[in-house]
Amino acid sequence: MSVLECNNVTAEEIKNFDKKYNLHSWSAQGSLNPQVIEKAEGIYFWDSEGKRYFDMSSQLVNLNVGHGNKKIIGAIKDQADKMPFMGPAYAVDVRSILAQKVIEKAPDNMGKVFFTLGGADSNENAIKIAKMFTGRNKIFSRYRSYHGASYGAANLTGEPRRYTCEPGIPGFVKFFDPYIYRAGIEFKSEEAASKYYVDKLREQIIYEGEESVAAIFLETVTGSNGVIIPPKGYLKGIREICDEFGILMVCDEVMTGFGRTGEWFACNNWDVKPDLITFAKGITCGYVPLGGVLVDKKISEYFDNNTLMCGLTYNAHPLSCAAGIATLEVYEEEKLVENSKDLGKILGKLLEDIKEKHPSVGDVRYIGLFSAVELVKDKVTREALVPYGKDPEKIMPRIIGMLKEKGFSTYSHENNIMIAPPLTITEAELREAIGIFDKVMCFVDEYIKK
Amino acid sequence: MSVLECNNVTAEEIKNFDKKYNLHSWSAQGSLNPQVIEKAEGIYFWDSEGKRYFDMSSQLVNLNVGHGNKKIIGAIKDQADKMPFMGPAYAVDVRSILAQKVIEKAPDNMGKVFFTLGGADSNENAIKIAKMFTGRNKIFSRYRSYHGASYGAANLTGEPRRYTCEPGIPGFVKFFDPYIYRAGIEFKSEEAASKYYVDKLREQIIYEGEESVAAIFLETVTGSNGVIIPPKGYLKGIREICDEFGILMVCDEVMTGFGRTGEWFACNNWDVKPDLITFAKGITCGYVPLGGVLVDKKISEYFDNNTLMCGLTYNAHPLSCAAGIATLEVYEEEKLVENSKDLGKILGKLLEDIKEKHPSVGDVRYIGLFSAVELVKDKVTREALVPYGKDPEKIMPRIIGMLKEKGFSTYSHENNIMIAPPLTITEAELREAIGIFDKVMCFVDEYIKK
Ligand SMILES: Cc1ncc(COP(=O)(O)O)c(C=O)c1O
Ligand SMILES: Cc1ncc(COP(=O)(O)O)c(C=O)c1O
Repeated sequence: MSVLECNNVTAEEIKNFDKKYNLHSWSAQGSLNPQVIEKAEGIYFWDSEGKRYFDMSSQLVNLNVGHGNKKIIGAIKDQADKMPFMGPAYAVDVRSILAQKVIEKAPDNMGKVFFTLGGADSNENAIKIAKMFTGRNKIFSRYRSYHGASYGAANLTGEPRRYTCEPGIPGFVKFFDPYIYRAGIEFKSEEAASKYYVDKLREQIIYEGEESVAAIFLETVTGSNGVIIPPKGYLKGIREICDEFGILMVCDEVMTGFGRTGEWFACNNWDVKPDLITFAKGITCGYVPLGGVLVDKKISEYFDNNTLMCGLTYNAHPLSCAAGIATLEVYEEEKLVENSKDLGKILGKLLEDIKEKHPSVGDVRYIGLFSAVELVKDKVTREALVPYGKDPEKIMPRIIGMLKEKGFSTYSHENNIMIAPPLTITEAELREAIGIFDKVMCFVDEYIKK
Repeated sequence: MSVLECNNVTAEEIKNFDKKYNLHSWSAQGSLNPQVIEKAEGIYFWDSEGKRYFDMSSQLVNLNVGHGNKKIIGAIKDQADKMPFMGPAYAVDVRSILAQKVIEKAPDNMGKVFFTLGGADSNENAIKIAKMFTGRNKIFSRYRSYHGASYGAANLTGEPRRYTCEPGIPGFVKFFDPYIYRAGIEFKSEEAASKYYVDKLREQIIYEGEESVAAIFLETVTGSNGVIIPPKGYLKGIREICDEFGILMVCDEVMTGFGRTGEWFACNNWDVKPDLITFAKGITCGYVPLGGVLVDKKISEYFDNNTLMCGLTYNAHPLSCAAGIATLEVYEEEKLVENSKDLGKILGKLLEDIKEKHPSVGDVRYIGLFSAVELVKDKVTREALVPYGKDPEKIMPRIIGMLKEKGFSTYSHENNIMIAPPLTITEAELREAIGIFDKVMCFVDEYIKK
């Protein structure tokens, strides 16, 4: 069968082949009944029965520009015609230009970029770079974080998706994140919370031996684990610890980078300059796989005379780089970073209303067009709708299914529902989609009454 | 600057941007002077000065179909227009069809496929799958092997590129490969060598505790470490150990898969059926990044009821899958697997002549269009041209530079030079290229006289 004949395959056959031959992520395959998707445009996609969905998670929070962007598609096609691949040792126009453009958008301390394929391998390379540069071994990262599923990235990860990569890599240490809603302590202010968490981290680093710590990894805003936003002063505090002990601060901006939080990088929101930034998703929005590590100038200079022991066959892939250049232009031309900030305020208001209205909504957290709704059994005790790592009544998938049924597509993690639409969404579309969400929360209210 | 304006950038600017902003793999950046490449077609590519090169390593042994293949480019463009991306949870025509086609080409015990982006992450996922399926922890792999640069893959790797990922992951154990040329023992026959190595491995597994071993990873034919070909009976012997102890046999066919050795998969050469096969490179030839893990039916059935704890945002990327389908069709239509086998015989003869003629050529190893030339200081003592892991006089890069100077592009590893042209090469082209190689070996002969 030829690619061009694919259109002659029925949805039924596509589904059957899929169930027969494909392994899907993070699931027992027997229980899957994958929807067949044939069309996607802007903030919508359609299943094979013609039903339309608001893509309210931008797929996996990667499609910041929405589906079917003509400019990016054009760039892919041009590069395919010109030179789809050239090995990583060579200089290629799109490879050079994208590197220059990413550095231009990044905090001004950044010197060079190492391109990879996705989020996990950007973190893998950041770990190695931090160890090489510092000559140190220990790596700090946080619980309730996700950094990818390969061994190194999974060992950074602070939630159950790391368990298959255990016994863990020696020297990877976890610390608590400033998850104020579940802190178990009342803080007088955001600043007080920051001070508490930063001091505790400093103490833990000293217990581990400050001279053995190469890097502190953190999602600038924790993403899939529930859009946990750092309190004021927290990131500055981490920066200070790093400066004090010669530790590298590594911000994982795989999900938050490229406009998601209303700034090019989330760290801009708090005016903090990490030593390394890892990115993926938004750089090409997934039109072609691409990720990377931005490194501070002092680090790029170090590798002038020291061998960078990193490599992958598809480092700085030309097709990906061409898509990346076009994607950055789309952000600029369509003012998507600004739209994310502006509409983010409206989203915030809509979510606060939902929190007020629904007994099942314990917390809402939002920054730019990046938000999560945290569901509880009881607003006062804050008992989570499902116990950590478990969901005996499969209530979360049922809620996600109900949203989908009504045309609102997203995903959940623990007791959190992600809301992160393409940055191209309009106010009217946002209001319509959140209206659907609101209705489904009434069902959750009923559920917790039982 | 727009993508479309890239053509207006001079080669000088491309190079300067590259040096200023890009980090390149496996090198100290200060010493690099990357060539600017603007055009590639078939088995050739051209630098910005118009000089043409035989691509005698198919870039990083990935471009089996050669550069600029119109059919694959067409498939990429069609899919870009149709739907460049859709999240991994959904069924998509190209995702289903490629899975079906890969299973069709694979050994008949294979049930399903999990798609990744490259070689390293295919091995990362294979490690996890083996641990989940067996419930065991230890992973065996070999010295003088390369499996990728991320933590898990690097811990499989048996050469210096793993050092930055140490201290190692607990439970990763290395064994010796059947590198007959440097065995340090004379064997009566290939079979005798196989028996020796297989028995030693069995002994080592028992010392490690056979019930704790999840998998044995091996490159079916060791690639970048010098095209080390398993002696007759070796792979069958490994298969038997695996069957005896319930260990999974994992063949890394990232470099050898898809026709490189004259068969669809290298394991076909010895009629062996691994439990898992990891692949990348040849599946799309790098036109779009793609890799994957093929799993035996008993393993895919296991995951019907057990959660597959694997995942990546760009799992089974539609653009990659479309390129993959077209690539498989190119292999078939152009009979590339057959060409690899046929021309491989001629390549073998040419290399044997070179070995006979040049004092500096210690060994030549070849299978299909996959070969390495091993350089020595002395044919009798077999002293390697450079000591392991070192090259004080930078002789290997000098040889590679001299080959390049004469229009023959490839790379080296330790004292081995890789020769692995696109499978589309003709006999006349092969003879012409090897003629260049022959000349440069005369220089190496002179060098070792000093
Ligand atoms: C913050 C963060 N880091 C890393 C990753 C891993 O990225 P990938 O799935 O491309 O490996 C993700 C994926 O969701 C992520 O959200
Ligand atoms: C046998 C083998 N396995 C794995 C890899 C790693 O693949 P990648 O560079 O795509 O991560 C390579 C790369 O050369 C390889 O040759």
